[in-house]
Parts: sequence; structure tokens; C-alpha cells
Amino acid sequence: MRDPVLVEVTRGGRVESRHAGAFAVLDAEGGVVLSAGDIDRPIFPRSAVKVIQALPLVESGAADGFGLDDEALALACASHGGEPRHVEVAARMLAAAAQGVAQLECGAHWPSHAAAARALACEGTGPSALHNNCSGKHAGFVCLACGTGVDPAGYIRPEHAVQRMVKAALEGVTGFRLAEGSHGIDGCSIPTYAIPLRALALGFARIGTGHGLEPARAAAAARLRAAVARHPFLVAGSERFDTRVMEALGPRAFVKVGAEGVFCAALPELGLGVALKCDDGASRAAEVVMAGLLRRLMTLSQAEEAVLAPLAAPIMHNWNGLEVGRMRLAEA
Amino acid sequence: MRDPVLVEVTRGGRVESRHAGAFAVLDAEGGVVLSAGDIDRPIFPRSAVKVIQALPLVESGAADGFGLDDEALALACASHGGEPRHVEVAARMLAAAAQGVAQLECGAHWPSHAAAARALACEGTGPSALHNNCSGKHAGFVCLACGTGVDPAGYIRPEHAVQRMVKAALEGVTGFRLAEGSHGIDGCSIPTYAIPLRALALGFARIGTGHGLEPARAAAAARLRAAVARHPFLVAGSERFDTRVMEALGPRAFVKVGAEGVFCAALPELGLGVALKCDDGASRAAEVVMAGLLRRLMTLSQAEEAVLAPLAAPIMHNWNGLEVGRMRLAEA
Repeated sequence: MRDPVLVEVTRGGRVESRHAGAFAVLDAEGGVVLSAGDIDRPIFPRSAVKVIQALPLVESGAADGFGLDDEALALACASHGGEPRHVEVAARMLAAAAQGVAQLECGAHWPSHAAAARALACEGTGPSALHNNCSGKHAGFVCLACGTGVDPAGYIRPEHAVQRMVKAALEGVTGFRLAEGSHGIDGCSIPTYAIPLRALALGFARIGTGHGLEPARAAAAARLRAAVARHPFLVAGSERFDTRVMEALGPRAFVKVGAEGVFCAALPELGLGVALKCDDGASRAAEVVMAGLLRRLMTLSQAEEAVLAPLAAPIMHNWNGLEVGRMRLAEA
Repeated sequence: MRDPVLVEVTRGGRVESRHAGAFAVLDAEGGVVLSAGDIDRPIFPRSAVKVIQALPLVESGAADGFGLDDEALALACASHGGEPRHVEVAARMLAAAAQGVAQLECGAHWPSHAAAARALACEGTGPSALHNNCSGKHAGFVCLACGTGVDPAGYIRPEHAVQRMVKAALEGVTGFRLAEGSHGIDGCSIPTYAIPLRALALGFARIGTGHGLEPARAAAAARLRAAVARHPFLVAGSERFDTRVMEALGPRAFVKVGAEGVFCAALPELGLGVALKCDDGASRAAEVVMAGLLRRLMTLSQAEEAVLAPLAAPIMHNWNGLEVGRMRLAEA
């Protein structure tokens, strides 16, 4: 049974491309409010669960021990564009733990924000691990290790204390047992564990409400969400979907992209969690589905709708600024 | 009836994403040698038909009139990365017709080759229309207009003499009647006409063999193929699939990518044409399908196989150089 087509891409009034996928919207009791496709097949959530991966940093006391502020906590949850402010905050996190860029094990790549990459090139230097879109998460891992008296070296490996804490947080929040060997390696070299959309959506309903979480974990989740709501630029960056949505919705929605067409969200006021994956891995379609679900589930002000509506039905322009196509939710 | 899954993307031994699509392999008589999915639904071939769009430039005598060499003819068929050599040849084509960059109507964008974009930024200048991946095709259109005594202004519009010649070439080669209003606007602002994969594959079988084409058109097609075979860098660029395949196979295969997951190929020695589209528009999957078809259809030397095999089953590495996943053809 194939997942349904969720998004159509049109050009000249004709459907040019189509994206299939699945999504789950659950409440914190595990009730399915809305779904499409197979929500019980484990998928790799990739970076969409960074807020869960950041819980041990707060719960352990390491964040407070090193005086990490909201900017740092937001960056710990980020897949950022490598813009100067992202890099500065990542460096500051490492410095707080008396560590440096050499401690990061995520690898270096050019900023994904193209203008930032060009500007960096013109400075005559190449990118460092601080420009890696995951540098905030990794700086958080280094702080977690140092703050709990563990040698950070090798913190990316599944058997390292840091990744054991991260795995336990994922299991605790989603309620899904992560079997040994059920992981792949993520782009930043840490393990990514396969988890069904149903469990991910439940996890995000808990992240948004605290229901079903121990008080300390619920408080840590609320603190991370608040940090991101205050600094939505840091969780993604210029022109990015997550940043634009959270600049508009503030604490009403926590949304986070993951590679290969994944998106998760927590909607605290509704008590709901959302998890989705486009089967072909397309981020452009995952964004349309997420924006469409936010519009469907939430009561939006005119100002919020003005941001969300174009994200749910993007108009594509060519290099001359002409409209050439659109994306839209497929009829169910 | 959905098209079958053609390509699987794996991570940690698990299928992470999957791409559905259709392909057609035809001989020049219209016989279907191999196919999957719906090959009779019209699709936008986008840049995959640039070699057909370049036929009028040669057939009209404009190319000879302006002394365009093989480099220019290869660039007229290109979706290039905007590297310096691409830009130089495009500028030379315009100069041959006593025209300049202001005549190009494709719009400007940063080179798609990231290192070329960074280098350009460091020169302190932004991109011009010469860096547009279609600048060679558009310079060819300007030459075609000037060489046939037509004002090039507005050459991107469907009703302009240039686009009428291009449309006639598409209809003649594919044998598919392009109804008025059956077009969309391409990224470079010219019309793109919807054509079924079956007709596209037939057209490329004709491009590769000359069968079914008037002698002058067959000669023009052979000349364009030879030009690209001599200068495969110009048709795409550094690290690009088309360039790597044609550097390896030379005149044995003409392959050309199009946006939104399209690929076409002519295999002259086998008398076959190939056309494919990934339904979700993914280029990464279209490349795997094309490489897989080339391996299946052609008898390859060890050196050729050394290039094609990795393209048909790419290994994905992360920023630390670790293998994290693979792509593979799905079992039929």
C-alpha cells in the first residue's frame, strides 16, 4: 500500500510533479486526530527531533552550569544556515565550556545560506565545523559531556554517554523502544534512530504540553520551546521556513525540519503533536504539508494567515520574476 | 495507476526514501524496447530537449553564418554550471552575431556550480545572464534570430519566429502535435511543451540515428551530438553527471538532464532513444535510472563501467566522509 500523493507541483496549469507521503497528528494521550498514509512504519526523523536531543543538556544541569542563555538553547535545536550570528553563538557555547571548534565532530561544510557562503569565501577563509548546520546541537553535546564530567571525545558514537542520554530521551518522549542496530548515521555523524510517525507525533504532543513527561523533562521542553520562540532566527535563518513560521506564530507553534522530507511540530495550545515525511525526501513538499496542517489545525489571525497561506501554496517564479508554477496540497 | 518505484535511498540498511517514475526506450521505428510506468502522459521535458531546440540554429545556416564552432554548438545544448569557460563561450557566441549580454532574455542567477559562484562573488561582481545555466541556448536563439534576419527582441515568447521554429523542430522530431496552450514557462522564460515519454524517446532515437528525419535535420543532429561528444564539459560542467558520462562514453551516448527529474538520451550505435521522468522531480533519482539504463542497454568497457557503475548505485557520504547511505534501482 503506497502512501497517498500529498502535494502537487503545477506548471502551465498542468501537474508537473507530485509528492507522496504520510502525516500523523496526535494528542498527548496517543489519540490520532488526523493522519494520512502509513504512520506505523519507522522512519529516520533526522534533524526534526533536535529539541528532544537537546533535552539532556537542560535536564542534566549542564546548560545552567555553563550559563547557556536562550540564544544558545535555540541554537542547540537548530539546523541553521551558517550565517554569522549562528557561528557566533556556536562559538560562544563552546567557550562557555572552555572548549573550542576542534572539539566539534560534525565536520565542516560551506554555509547552506548561499549569500553567507559567498561572503565567507570573500573573507579568504573556508568553512569550519562552526558553519555546519548542526554546530549548535554539537556544541550542546560538548557542553553536555563537559557538564556531566565525561570526556567529550567521541561524543558522536552510539556508545558514548552523550548519545546514550540522547537515545534515552528519544525513547522516553516518544515511548518507542529503539532497538540496537535500528539506527543510521546522520549527516553530522551522530546516530539517527528509526521511529514511526505515530510515536514522533505523540512525542511532540508531549513536548508541547508536558503531559506524560516527568516534571523536570516537561520543564526542559518548555524552556527549549520558549528559547526558540524568542530566537526563531537562530533555529534556521534568513528566508527559512521554520524561522518565518515561528516569527509569525511565536510560542503557538514549534516547528522543526529534518532532512529527507521530515517535519515535526508541537502545538501547545491545541495539545497536539505533528510528524510527517514525504516519501521521496523532498523538503519543498514537506513544508507545504506542514503549512497546510498548521492552517487546518490552528485558528490564525490575519497577520499569521498572511505568512502561512503563501507557504502552504507557494508560487514559483523564474529568473525573470515570472510566475511559472505553484505547489498545492493534493485533494484527499 | 501510479508509476512504479524506480529508485530507493537507503540509510543504515533501511529504505529511507523512494522515487517513483516512468521511462521509455524506443527504436527509431517507434518500437518500445523497454518501459516502466505511464509513457503516454505528456510531461514537460524542460532542458532535456535542448539538442532539439538547437536544431534550427544549425539547419537555418545561422551557425555557419556566424562561424560557430563545436564549443558554441555544445554550449547551445547545455545546462551549464556557470563556470568561467561556459561564460566565455556564451559571450563569444553573442559577439559572433554582433550582440551582447543585454540581448539575453533568460535572466541572471548565480552560477549553479557553488565554487564558481563563490569565486565570482570574490571578484566583487554579481552574476549576469551569461551565468544563467541556459545562456548557451539563449545565445543560440539570438544567433538564430540574427542569422535569419529577425529582430531577436522578444525571442522567448511563443509567438516569436525563434520559438515557432523551435516548436516545429520539437513536433517534427518527436512526431507529437503540440497543441496551442499546452505549454508552461520554463525557468529561462521560454515555453516548454508537454510531450509523452514515448514520443520523446522516439525523438531521441531519431536524433541518434537520423532515421525518420530529413537529411538536413539528420545532419544537424549528428553535428550537435558530435560537438557535445567533443566538449562534454561545456554541456554541464565540473562534477556533473552528463559531463562525466559523456567524457567516458564519447559519441556512444548523448545524455541530457532536464529540470524536475527528466532525462533523455540518444544511443546511436544501438539505434535507441531514452526518455524518463521521476514523478517527484528528483534529479538524484533520474541520474540513477539513466545510469542504470545505460548499463543495461550498452556493452561497456571496463573503463566505461568504472564510471557508470558508481553513478547507478551512488554511495552517499556525510561531512566527515563516512558512508551514510546509498541509492539503488528498485527491484522491478
